[in-house]
Amino acid sequence: MAMSTGNDDPRSEAAHYWRTSICDISPGRISFRGYPVQDLIGSVSFPAMIWLMLRGELPTVHQASLLEAALVASVDHGPQAPSIAVSRMAVSCGLPLNGAMASAINMLDDVHGGAGQQALELYLEILACVETGETLDAATAIIIDQWTASHGKYLPGFGHRFHPVDPRAGRLIDLVEDMVGKGVVTGRIAAAARAVEALMAARKGKLIPMNIDGATAVIYGELGFPPPLARGIFCLSRAVGILAHAWEQSSRGERNKGPMPRSFSFLYEGQHPKESDDRL
Amino acid sequence: MAMSTGNDDPRSEAAHYWRTSICDISPGRISFRGYPVQDLIGSVSFPAMIWLMLRGELPTVHQASLLEAALVASVDHGPQAPSIAVSRMAVSCGLPLNGAMASAINMLDDVHGGAGQQALELYLEILACVETGETLDAATAIIIDQWTASHGKYLPGFGHRFHPVDPRAGRLIDLVEDMVGKGVVTGRIAAAARAVEALMAARKGKLIPMNIDGATAVIYGELGFPPPLARGIFCLSRAVGILAHAWEQSSRGERNKGPMPRSFSFLYEGQHPKESDDRL
Amino acid sequence: MAMSTGNDDPRSEAAHYWRTSICDISPGRISFRGYPVQDLIGSVSFPAMIWLMLRGELPTVHQASLLEAALVASVDHGPQAPSIAVSRMAVSCGLPLNGAMASAINMLDDVHGGAGQQALELYLEILACVETGETLDAATAIIIDQWTASHGKYLPGFGHRFHPVDPRAGRLIDLVEDMVGKGVVTGRIAAAARAVEALMAARKGKLIPMNIDGATAVIYGELGFPPPLARGIFCLSRAVGILAHAWEQSSRGERNKGPMPRSFSFLYEGQHPKESDDRL
Amino acid sequence: MAMSTGNDDPRSEAAHYWRTSICDISPGRISFRGYPVQDLIGSVSFPAMIWLMLRGELPTVHQASLLEAALVASVDHGPQAPSIAVSRMAVSCGLPLNGAMASAINMLDDVHGGAGQQALELYLEILACVETGETLDAATAIIIDQWTASHGKYLPGFGHRFHPVDPRAGRLIDLVEDMVGKGVVTGRIAAAARAVEALMAARKGKLIPMNIDGATAVIYGELGFPPPLARGIFCLSRAVGILAHAWEQSSRGERNKGPMPRSFSFLYEGQHPKESDDRL
Repeated sequence: MAMSTGNDDPRSEAAHYWRTSICDISPGRISFRGYPVQDLIGSVSFPAMIWLMLRGELPTVHQASLLEAALVASVDHGPQAPSIAVSRMAVSCGLPLNGAMASAINMLDDVHGGAGQQALELYLEILACVETGETLDAATAIIIDQWTASHGKYLPGFGHRFHPVDPRAGRLIDLVEDMVGKGVVTGRIAAAARAVEALMAARKGKLIPMNIDGATAVIYGELGFPPPLARGIFCLSRAVGILAHAWEQSSRGERNKGPMPRSFSFLYEGQHPKESDDRL
Repeated sequence: MAMSTGNDDPRSEAAHYWRTSICDISPGRISFRGYPVQDLIGSVSFPAMIWLMLRGELPTVHQASLLEAALVASVDHGPQAPSIAVSRMAVSCGLPLNGAMASAINMLDDVHGGAGQQALELYLEILACVETGETLDAATAIIIDQWTASHGKYLPGFGHRFHPVDPRAGRLIDLVEDMVGKGVVTGRIAAAARAVEALMAARKGKLIPMNIDGATAVIYGELGFPPPLARGIFCLSRAVGILAHAWEQSSRGERNKGPMPRSFSFLYEGQHPKESDDRL
Repeated sequence: MAMSTGNDDPRSEAAHYWRTSICDISPGRISFRGYPVQDLIGSVSFPAMIWLMLRGELPTVHQASLLEAALVASVDHGPQAPSIAVSRMAVSCGLPLNGAMASAINMLDDVHGGAGQQALELYLEILACVETGETLDAATAIIIDQWTASHGKYLPGFGHRFHPVDPRAGRLIDLVEDMVGKGVVTGRIAAAARAVEALMAARKGKLIPMNIDGATAVIYGELGFPPPLARGIFCLSRAVGILAHAWEQSSRGERNKGPMPRSFSFLYEGQHPKESDDRL
Repeated sequence: MAMSTGNDDPRSEAAHYWRTSICDISPGRISFRGYPVQDLIGSVSFPAMIWLMLRGELPTVHQASLLEAALVASVDHGPQAPSIAVSRMAVSCGLPLNGAMASAINMLDDVHGGAGQQALELYLEILACVETGETLDAATAIIIDQWTASHGKYLPGFGHRFHPVDPRAGRLIDLVEDMVGKGVVTGRIAAAARAVEALMAARKGKLIPMNIDGATAVIYGELGFPPPLARGIFCLSRAVGILAHAWEQSSRGERNKGPMPRSFSFLYEGQHPKESDDRL
């Protein structure tokens, strides 16, 4: 029996099957990571609670504030972002807020929500290469060459199709530097990110500046979050904008909101009309 | 042309079709509710950002802290909650964190995620009845009778199938009282909630205490959030637990995790085996 | 113990908790509604299988063919339909086909996917009124008045914002008539639908013809499906178009496809830029 | 302008942005792949419609019947399958049928819904290796060694944790053989699948028989569907079981159905209770 706990008690087996180290619940008592819930409510900040749930320990005030900056930065990028558009369309189709959020958060997959995770993977590969004895610049060149060979020319976390300079990235990196100065984080991930930026500028002859994903990935990495949580925490942040747009949309009278105004049409580029044939 | 902006410019028509008062974006510039994003990052708390996005103005520190308490309180209730179970099952099916969160947040519909919204509707109906000249106790009796007549005996926000007393509710209400004392909120919603509790205790001869949904609904109502946002903000909170469980699950080797251990089976209670018949 | 099966055996309790009359599975054996799966494969049509799973018995050939016509009719209505647009956007965000289908099918809620269900409810209310002794015309007038009083002027199943005459509806109703002639269905639901069309034409002075939802609702009702399954079966049908568009989109190189071309922008109609204030 | 159609007309640009070769719609007219919808309704089978939408041409009767067999075979595997469990839990949380289907279909990701796609990829790699001059047996050994080296020992499409022999697979393969005899398909994919089965039996000393995913992958491959559509079509099939279980669940009174009966509990294996500390 694959999941057996080593005894024949079905209730124990089932309890083990759904085991967790996150929360403990018994009648009248709830605790998270060992802390009674009533001690957390009103005492810890929401970002600290996010950290506790994901990491198992409470953060320091400085750690929580750096995480908080990243959470604030990514909430929204307007209705042209597929996640936001889907949220608004969902409400017009009759979905309640939870359903609109679900359909919209689902959109945050590899392309729309994965850049932060990929950027952090890139930074960590560079630092792992440094561990083998390479200089940071050499390691950056090696890893970027490997990355572009296997993933293509698009480097996650740098450049933005819309913003020549992403106004969020600089502010976030400034906060990281501040925390480096305070000894809260080491700055090693930030250095890797800057090395990527510098190498690409040298190679291309122009700056392709760090974007929101590249900058939040620095924060998550400096704080010790593994790459998949860069995506996961981004989902928590973007959920706020998704909810705000769903809520705004719910006050409009639109029904079945399509991607374009109703006076617009789409182009059919398929086969010409067919006569009914024998198969019909 | 239904959505026409009054001119014949298709770009204007499309821009109007996707209009929003939440965010403004132009190359190199992003602002939310009129605030440049770089002024918000590192300056406002995550709960304050949530408030700004949903309400259009920044909260006071006290308002934000009361919202924060509600956000912290609802993050998780363990793997027997459908939202949490679905999140864990999703990861075992191969979904990335965004997908697990989507399927799980979708679960927070009327029954699993709607009690806070319904409780706030109930409180507001009672207060509206008070506005007509009834005393609070009389209004409470009138509205509860109407509510049970149209919705059934289950009163949202009170009683818990598992917890005789919900350890979250008392702490949350204490915080509300504290804020009433500071003049941050009026306490009118809290009074309505207590009137419901008292009436039911008198009628049933035993206390059916306020639960997490009833208590967070008091907070959302005191802070001026409309009922649907009680559900929406709950989704933001529960998203944290959903993510934490998805992340914990991702370190397990389980594939296609069903609801019960594999040694368990389900009961078939349908028709007996059939001979192939003419229709086959 | 709420779900107890009357004994203390946890495995029995759990088996009962997940009981079903749809499928029976044991090692090497699978049966649906009593039929061994190997007897169904290659023997029954897909629409007949749908019927068997939902109803518990196999349909006649004529019943299955009428259901099949409804399944064929509703597969797609182009990229301006939110369900189809979301499917295409999802693929561009990195979602696999299952994820694109999930986000898109979620869209088929009360407004986008509920009209067939609502139309069937309307027809059944009319026929229930006839059962009380009213003529069909009188019952139709009574029920439509009630419906518009409680739901608003929009009658589900009639009229189309885009098609003056819906080319699917007439063909579907012709097939129903054919089946009435063969004694397969009674035609009572079709008569109710026609009575609605006639009454509205008389009241408004112009024909508001039955649309795809009104016509498929006639078919589902004539075949004995309850109203919620009008929505459910529509989801099975529309899933085909959703998949086809997701698949077509996957051959395009687009990333993060928003609702409008990138040269388009959205209108910001919110607050003017704010100076940083004390709260920041 | 990336998506420009070569002129400055915004309506043309937007029409091109949402271009499709699947459906053509104008007032009063709808056609799919060139066929007017009214010519398809009542004339083509649902599997033929699925084929037309995905492939652009109608299938022959034999092709459609082989596809139909695969569609019938995969509808359901009971409440222990995560997709089915989620569907039932969703209904108990208040979701309508479309929402239950969405959350459940989302589950059909790489692990739960990807085996057919992966099996077809495996078969096609073997046949591509044969094209280079290897015998089928040699190619099978080469590709299986490569596959297990890069993907691990688990071979998609063979073996079943529950069924010693999958009752669906043999029946499906018999139908393929029948179609080979009729000249409908070539049998090359089926031969590759049998070569995999034979090689593994020789290596392991016991038969690890083809399962439903391996067998449906043979059908999809023989019919010319590319691997991702093995997953997509599986989603269409499983959607039927998902809907049937959602519908059955909707007649139960359960609210917030968790994975186990309420008398069961889960195991907490985390940190011991903590005193409130300075951070709180």
